[in-house]
Amino acid sequence: MAGVNTPELAAAVSNAGGLGSIGCGMMETQAIEAAIARIRELTDKPFAVNLFITPQPQPDEAQILRMQAKLARYRAELGLPRGKLPARFAPDFGEQFEAVLEARVPVFSFTFGALDAQRLAALQAQGAKVIGTAGCVGEARQLEELGCDAIVASGIESGGHRPNFAVPAERAQIGLFALLPQVAAAVRVPVIAAGGVMTAAQIAAALLLGASGVQLGSALLRTPECGASAAYKAALEGIDETGTRLTRAFSGRWARGVVNRFMQEIDARGDIPEYPIQNRLTQDIRAAANAQGKAEYVSLWAGQAAGLATAEPAGDVVRRLRRQLEELL
Amino acid sequence: MAGVNTPELAAAVSNAGGLGSIGCGMMETQAIEAAIARIRELTDKPFAVNLFITPQPQPDEAQILRMQAKLARYRAELGLPRGKLPARFAPDFGEQFEAVLEARVPVFSFTFGALDAQRLAALQAQGAKVIGTAGCVGEARQLEELGCDAIVASGIESGGHRPNFAVPAERAQIGLFALLPQVAAAVRVPVIAAGGVMTAAQIAAALLLGASGVQLGSALLRTPECGASAAYKAALEGIDETGTRLTRAFSGRWARGVVNRFMQEIDARGDIPEYPIQNRLTQDIRAAANAQGKAEYVSLWAGQAAGLATAEPAGDVVRRLRRQLEELL
Repeated sequence: MAGVNTPELAAAVSNAGGLGSIGCGMMETQAIEAAIARIRELTDKPFAVNLFITPQPQPDEAQILRMQAKLARYRAELGLPRGKLPARFAPDFGEQFEAVLEARVPVFSFTFGALDAQRLAALQAQGAKVIGTAGCVGEARQLEELGCDAIVASGIESGGHRPNFAVPAERAQIGLFALLPQVAAAVRVPVIAAGGVMTAAQIAAALLLGASGVQLGSALLRTPECGASAAYKAALEGIDETGTRLTRAFSGRWARGVVNRFMQEIDARGDIPEYPIQNRLTQDIRAAANAQGKAEYVSLWAGQAAGLATAEPAGDVVRRLRRQLEELL
Repeated sequence: MAGVNTPELAAAVSNAGGLGSIGCGMMETQAIEAAIARIRELTDKPFAVNLFITPQPQPDEAQILRMQAKLARYRAELGLPRGKLPARFAPDFGEQFEAVLEARVPVFSFTFGALDAQRLAALQAQGAKVIGTAGCVGEARQLEELGCDAIVASGIESGGHRPNFAVPAERAQIGLFALLPQVAAAVRVPVIAAGGVMTAAQIAAALLLGASGVQLGSALLRTPECGASAAYKAALEGIDETGTRLTRAFSGRWARGVVNRFMQEIDARGDIPEYPIQNRLTQDIRAAANAQGKAEYVSLWAGQAAGLATAEPAGDVVRRLRRQLEELL
């Protein structure tokens, strides 16, 4: 939920007995420090910080200029100045990681790759628990060997970016119902189920399939604490299970979101620069579209059960699910 | 499992307390009659007969000849004569249906479409239960309105052909974990969960998610009663959850199978005639490949958990799952 989650959302989840998480993958170090400090003002419970293991981009200038030419139309429609060749495509992971290490967080999670062993050891030496994210069994095994304390198994139902790093996302589109028991059988560390989890019955089902816990994303998107724009939240209301699909249009990396005009037009054209290049190129467009309430240009990340999301406060969602789960078990 | 299931498999499942099923979608009427008669020799328990709601093909001769030219290479490798323009592409559904109606079967199931109301009423007037197959919530609603007695909800994990008829299969790739609770909430008739179901824990999870039962496919593929060729059964051993994908290469209709050479080469080329045309064009190739033990040309339909399939007798699979499920509940 990087980009739309807030310290308030993370703290509300932690205060309600969940493990609140803040996705800092797209933040510079100062923003990361401020977000962590703010969570600590709002809760004394454990929380997690998530970073993206972002590759060093290999920019192809000609391809970038072709994409900027294509994006010119959307910028004009949104009243934005023309796009340029960015000097930088993503925050520096090393700097981001140092900021997190400095902040001594209780739980660190990562996605899009495997954390290097040295950094993982540095976190664990601080007493932090480390969670990796897998899209298939092989990735889960690799994360366990690395020394992760727990592993998120992300089914194809999940909203937002696919976590895959060892197997191309196209080759690992595994439904959670098939993925979870196979991951749980393959590793000894606790497995956290992700992908379309919205109800207490689903949580109970995930536990039956071998999970030790679940990760909620879309279930919290419409909460007042969530930083998703009004246009984004409105786009989620009443969408059905066929309303999302995988796209590379917004970021250059496969991710699941509500089908909209930008996604359809950019995917149809192809020739999309790799993540994080495309992510940087579309940044101003997404920001302006959110501000102007134009959902047709927003990356509306959402899972295949996002239509079940409620607008309750986040703490109420977590407390309700915990209560309903207790009744089920 | 049309093409690889047998009267022996259906009867073994029924005798063990499941509802055995025989997929007759690709059979001519005489074969259907013989299969049903054979099941009745082997069991006095209820069983189901499945048919495909097959569209009238609109053959494009030029496209067929282009595909035959492409397939010439595989025919040569398998020692087959050159492909021709077939006079007929699929058995006549009306005739198939009459044969089933005549046989007065206890349960009739269908996929790839919605049965017309008149035929459905004729079955129900005989006392038959009728089961339709849905790949999304909208299709499940449509099947309930039609009057189906139960609905199979097929998650994207499922092996073999996608059932979709109202929403294109590309737009309804819904993981069972997200699909099942949404279908169960949308219809009042019993829902049967399909897609990657191999274990008793998964059956219990499906019941929690709103299913009244589950449908097994891949779980029975390696049983001795299953008519899958030795090459097919061998190809399933030890495949992992990334070993299958959706393809149109074999039949012109999206289906999940083990990735092999034929799938990769034909999909990469594109220009594949619609189902059932492509299915007819590849028929001799698949048959020869099965006979010659060459899995690289076989449509190795399998779900995303097919690696968990065992080679036990089918009755033992069903009895084991029932026993394990009882222990879990």
